[in-house]
Amino acid sequence: MAVRISELNFSKGGGLIPVVTQDVNTNEVLMVAYMNEESLKKTLDTGFAHYWSRSRNSLWMKGETSGNTQKVKSIMIDCDEDTILLKVEQKGNACHTGNKTCFYRRIEKPLVI
Amino acid sequence: MAVRISELNFSKGGGLIPVVTQDVNTNEVLMVAYMNEESLKKTLDTGFAHYWSRSRNSLWMKGETSGNTQKVKSIMIDCDEDTILLKVEQKGNACHTGNKTCFYRRIEKPLVI
Repeated sequence: MAVRISELNFSKGGGLIPVVTQDVNTNEVLMVAYMNEESLKKTLDTGFAHYWSRSRNSLWMKGETSGNTQKVKSIMIDCDEDTILLKVEQKGNACHTGNKTCFYRRIEKPLVI
Repeated sequence: MAVRISELNFSKGGGLIPVVTQDVNTNEVLMVAYMNEESLKKTLDTGFAHYWSRSRNSLWMKGETSGNTQKVKSIMIDCDEDTILLKVEQKGNACHTGNKTCFYRRIEKPLVI
């Protein structure tokens, strides 16, 4: 089943939709970022992941400075039309810390304070 | 590396953190929901995923009515401390539509309008 961009609900998040990015080969979750309509269109047009930076308030192509680009293999939308799941071929590491994924730390019960 | 709840940044999202929930066996992304500090504590205390419902404005245990509970196997936090990744054993389907995952529809380029 396919959907159109116009069916997405960008309004809930003030024009932004959270995007989960998953490695197409390992299914590892690499990162979560945000897209507005412009970055989703740019992603569809170029085939490379583009996000919206909330801190810089600007369009951002993943890997534009680091070279760690994400070639998009599929774009899924959830049942509420307010979240996107990208499957990508990740070049290098996804995380700016040098880790493969941004999720490299665990929350454990004995340490909760 | 382990982190404490107090290190998490709930303020960016107005007290809420987006949570990606992944099937621990298949690595399939099942859903994205939100947690506040209370639902994270409840998740840690009970071992079952609890979220914060933005529409009902209340704490919500996944599967409390449907029976499709999520037994938590790990909780990871991202580099910015503002997103959580849960790995769970999903009982039944994760999506209220009856699909295994909430991400069952694809966005395709020719259909974008």
